[in-house]
Amino acid sequence: MNKKTKFNASILIIGNEILSGRTKDTNTSTLALWLSSIGVKVEEVRVIPDDEKVIINSVREMKSKYNYVFTSGGIGPTHDDITAESIAKAFNLKYEIHDEGFKILKAYYKPGEFNEGRQKMIWMPRNAKLILNPTSGAPGFSVENVFCLPGVPSILKSMLGGLTNEIVGGEPILSKTISLKTVESEIAHSLTLVQDNNEDVEIGSYPFFQSGKLGVSIVLRSTEQKKIDTCILEILNFVKQKKIEIVER
Amino acid sequence: MNKKTKFNASILIIGNEILSGRTKDTNTSTLALWLSSIGVKVEEVRVIPDDEKVIINSVREMKSKYNYVFTSGGIGPTHDDITAESIAKAFNLKYEIHDEGFKILKAYYKPGEFNEGRQKMIWMPRNAKLILNPTSGAPGFSVENVFCLPGVPSILKSMLGGLTNEIVGGEPILSKTISLKTVESEIAHSLTLVQDNNEDVEIGSYPFFQSGKLGVSIVLRSTEQKKIDTCILEILNFVKQKKIEIVER
Repeated sequence: MNKKTKFNASILIIGNEILSGRTKDTNTSTLALWLSSIGVKVEEVRVIPDDEKVIINSVREMKSKYNYVFTSGGIGPTHDDITAESIAKAFNLKYEIHDEGFKILKAYYKPGEFNEGRQKMIWMPRNAKLILNPTSGAPGFSVENVFCLPGVPSILKSMLGGLTNEIVGGEPILSKTISLKTVESEIAHSLTLVQDNNEDVEIGSYPFFQSGKLGVSIVLRSTEQKKIDTCILEILNFVKQKKIEIVER
Repeated sequence: MNKKTKFNASILIIGNEILSGRTKDTNTSTLALWLSSIGVKVEEVRVIPDDEKVIINSVREMKSKYNYVFTSGGIGPTHDDITAESIAKAFNLKYEIHDEGFKILKAYYKPGEFNEGRQKMIWMPRNAKLILNPTSGAPGFSVENVFCLPGVPSILKSMLGGLTNEIVGGEPILSKTISLKTVESEIAHSLTLVQDNNEDVEIGSYPFFQSGKLGVSIVLRSTEQKKIDTCILEILNFVKQKKIEIVER
């Protein structure tokens, strides 16, 4: 169920290493949790290859469909880093050296170390707004509602703090999980009734198999704590009736 | 760089729990590694919400764009499991009880345990082909080139063996990684030359920061071992010249 939200976002993971299965994407989770906390709901994620045409088409589609687009990957110094140039093309902007970025990286590196490879990292779409990088110097950037971040998870994470003031969100999206020692089919009917009674709350049901234990986690999401509380009462009600053990709440 | 392949696929991860950031997707990696091994290249992944319209539109777009589409999630017994009904609508097929699936689940459960919730799991698009589930009974299914699997990673994984004969692929996609104690900017220019010399090999460069160590992994992918070997020689050549330490090869 996809409930109404005021502010939405999409994430574009750019990189062959995710599509090949070699690397498991964790940036989606990092970005989505952070965005939830500032009241922005992620409605779509796409993983696409390091392919200029695909990047351009995806960015154009997503920037008009969602309030915010976050890209991850492809802004390093090597031949397969083509995100910045592709974003410039997506916006029909010149791809050029970013003066402010140049100064930042020149100051960051020791004399003589700011080589050609590193200089590639401050080629950006004209008038791009920098996203500072407290971990490794090379900044990300934004153009209109598209925010371009690196693929390395620890670096991406370290750059979000500086972005919080850039993103206008709504009420934080609150989440509550109740885990039960049961199977989904046992509670499916009762949970449907709870969802029908509480249309504004996103209710998800997720079976888990952890260290030999079998159970179901019910996840409630809403911007209003009261609405979540009402659901919890209704769930505890059927849980009691069915004599189901609560694992965690 | 997105090199030519004979057989391609896309993956559709259906589930609010991935979009909210609560759960990290691992099914993409599982599916992509398995598909690579049977010569099918994943070219796109989308994560979408449990929303009927979005599922229908995404499936319709992807099934005509790629040789194979794999969906993960939303085929359980609860109210938020709407994948099977949405796939039926995407193909304009009746959504009904699958006779063979019914027999399988009836035999799987103890007498009296095959309740309404569980019966929901064998409602499928008319004439769907079952994908057997050796872990927990409830089968997945396919319609034409769309293969629908569950979201629970261990169950999804256990169902792939039974699918291998259903998927026609090309030559397995081979992969070789060389990890160097360097930074990307140091090798960017040399690596570009290697890529230019070997257009048929997908060459990716990925910085890593592991247990205090900083380095770059170069990943070479091709269906032809000879072409990978040629790249390796060229890489070892510049590595030697630059006196870079090899961490792993």
